[in-house]
Amino acid sequence: MMKAYIKQISNIVLAGMGDSKHWIVMDSDEEFGGKSAACKPLELVLIGLGGCTGMDVISILKKMRSPIDDFEISIEAERAEEHPQVFTKIRLEYHFFGKSIDAQKIEKAIELSKTKYCSVSNMLKKSVSIEYAYRINPIRDWTR
Amino acid sequence: MMKAYIKQISNIVLAGMGDSKHWIVMDSDEEFGGKSAACKPLELVLIGLGGCTGMDVISILKKMRSPIDDFEISIEAERAEEHPQVFTKIRLEYHFFGKSIDAQKIEKAIELSKTKYCSVSNMLKKSVSIEYAYRINPIRDWTR
Repeated sequence: MMKAYIKQISNIVLAGMGDSKHWIVMDSDEEFGGKSAACKPLELVLIGLGGCTGMDVISILKKMRSPIDDFEISIEAERAEEHPQVFTKIRLEYHFFGKSIDAQKIEKAIELSKTKYCSVSNMLKKSVSIEYAYRINPIRDWTR
Repeated sequence: MMKAYIKQISNIVLAGMGDSKHWIVMDSDEEFGGKSAACKPLELVLIGLGGCTGMDVISILKKMRSPIDDFEISIEAERAEEHPQVFTKIRLEYHFFGKSIDAQKIEKAIELSKTKYCSVSNMLKKSVSIEYAYRINPIRDWTR
């Protein structure tokens, strides 16, 4: 059993806390009475999706003794125009950085997250199609 | 189109940012190589669910000119034992505080969020049953 608690802070601004005991503040756009001073609830779902599959992939690559120097995921989500404006398509693009990265192991790790481990994607996929892609980059160069 | 970006901070610890440009850090239990120093990804989904329906309800009650003094939601979620350990049942209990709260308006606001407005619950309900309950409390007494 997981528990979470949501508390009104001020007007539309809410704080939420789960079992790990860390507060997350949520706000909305000015259009809905907020000030955009924190994440929106729907953003948390996308970030939770990326975090869930990202931790899977990092953890699986460690078990495979397949080191990476750095890692990120770009996520794009299309939404329905009509309420409740659910996601209609999500695209996850994993970026791996390192000079000796094994594409086969990367593919295996993403596949295991997608089919077996990722709680969030395995719930969302019943209502939205999720596409997976990846890129391998030899170096992380912040000057580019 | 919504976008989000996930970046590895250290080992299993990730940071995520959506269109509102606020970073959310995510960590795991020590069992999976983390330090439980931030929310877990799956907690963000529960908090996002509560935030989404909570903002709906506050916003609808404002339009109905039905004031509340304070508001919170308790959330409980059961998970499958087998991987991917998806949620199998979620229970949302809304707590409203105030001396002149109209139960019919509360029910209408929750119903509108459930059936029409809440993006998160309308995606999750395809894979998990979601129960709704509410309580009205005349006063918020932190000494209790």
